[in-house]
Amino acid sequence: MARPSSLDELIEALRCLPGVGPKSAQRMAYHLLQHNPRGGERLSLAIAHALKNLRHCIRCNNFTEAEVCERCASSKRDPSLLCVVEMPVDLNTMEQTHAFNGLYYVLMGRLSPLDGIGPRELAFERLMARVGDGLVKEVILATNFTNEGEATAHYLSELLRARGLKSSRIARGVPVGGELEFTDAATVAQALRERREY
Amino acid sequence: MARPSSLDELIEALRCLPGVGPKSAQRMAYHLLQHNPRGGERLSLAIAHALKNLRHCIRCNNFTEAEVCERCASSKRDPSLLCVVEMPVDLNTMEQTHAFNGLYYVLMGRLSPLDGIGPRELAFERLMARVGDGLVKEVILATNFTNEGEATAHYLSELLRARGLKSSRIARGVPVGGELEFTDAATVAQALRERREY
Repeated sequence: MARPSSLDELIEALRCLPGVGPKSAQRMAYHLLQHNPRGGERLSLAIAHALKNLRHCIRCNNFTEAEVCERCASSKRDPSLLCVVEMPVDLNTMEQTHAFNGLYYVLMGRLSPLDGIGPRELAFERLMARVGDGLVKEVILATNFTNEGEATAHYLSELLRARGLKSSRIARGVPVGGELEFTDAATVAQALRERREY
Repeated sequence: MARPSSLDELIEALRCLPGVGPKSAQRMAYHLLQHNPRGGERLSLAIAHALKNLRHCIRCNNFTEAEVCERCASSKRDPSLLCVVEMPVDLNTMEQTHAFNGLYYVLMGRLSPLDGIGPRELAFERLMARVGDGLVKEVILATNFTNEGEATAHYLSELLRARGLKSSRIARGVPVGGELEFTDAATVAQALRERREY
C-alpha cells in the first residue's frame, strides 16, 4: 500500500537540496501540499526560470543573466584590482563592507583533493586568462581561512607569481570588537606575527 | 549592483519550505545552480506534478492521486476500525507496525487555538460524516501525546460519544525496551495509572 508516486517523487526530488534528509524532505513535501501550494508553484517556476536564465559571467564567473554581469560592465569599478573569492556569498560579504571598489573573480569552490576538486575542476586557467587582461595590477586572494581556502590561496599565489603578477592575501587577526581573552590562540598568534607598525 | 532577479526570486521562493531561512535559501540556490542543475530540474517538475496530481482521498483525507486511495478501496482492510491520526507521517508510522488492519482518517493537523486552528479548520464534520457510514464500530484516536494532540483526542471523543460511537485512545506508557531509570516521571506515572492485569 505505497504512497502515491507523485508524492514519493516529490519527496525524493527535495533531497537534492543540501542538508535535506529523508525526514525533512517528507516534512517539506507535506507542508507544500497541505499548507502552501502557491509557494510550491512559485518555487517550481523559480527553479525552472533560474536554471534557464542564469549563466556564469564570462569575466567574473559569478551568476548573471547577461553575458557580462552588471558589476564587471560598470565603469565605476577599478579594473586594476581583482579580488578572488570562493563563492558568490563571499562576494556579497565583501560588497557589504563597502571597502572594495575593484572587480571580482568567483572560483565557485576551493581546492579539495579529497572531494576530487583540483585546479582543473575550478578552471584556474580561466582565472589566469582573466588576470592577463593587461589591466589587473593586483590580485587580492580572499578565500576563506580554512585549510582548503588557505591551500587554494597559496596555490593561486604561486601561479600568479610565475606570471609576474602581484598577489596579496586579506589579513588574519583579532576580529573588530574582539577581546583577546575570547579569541582562539591560533588567531592571536597570527595577529602577533602579522603585527603592523603603529 | 543587485543580484540577477531570477536568482533573487529563486532564493525568495525557497523560503516557502519549512525551516528554510534566508541563509539556507541562499545556500540551496547556489547549490542547485552550481552543483545540481539536473536535480533542480527534477525538483521543479516534481513540485508541479505533485500539485497537479495529488488531492485528498474523499474517505481518509490522506493524499492520493485517485478519488479514493488504494488503502480505502482495499477489501483486505477491516472497515469496522477507524484510526484517526494527525498527519500522513503518523499514518506511515502506524502502518510500519503491521499491527493494524483497519482504515484511517488523517486530520491534516491538530487543534491549536493559538494558531487559529479549530474544529472548523480541521473539518471535523467530514470526519463525523465518515464515521457515520454504518460500518465503523470503533474509532481509535492516535493523535500525538502532546498537549495539542491530547486536546484534539479529547474533543473528538466527546463528539463521538454524542453520536453514540465507541472511541478509544492508544496507550501511553514506558516504551518497549525502556528502562524506568531513564523514563520521565510523567510517563512512569501514566504507566502506573494505566497498569493492566497480568
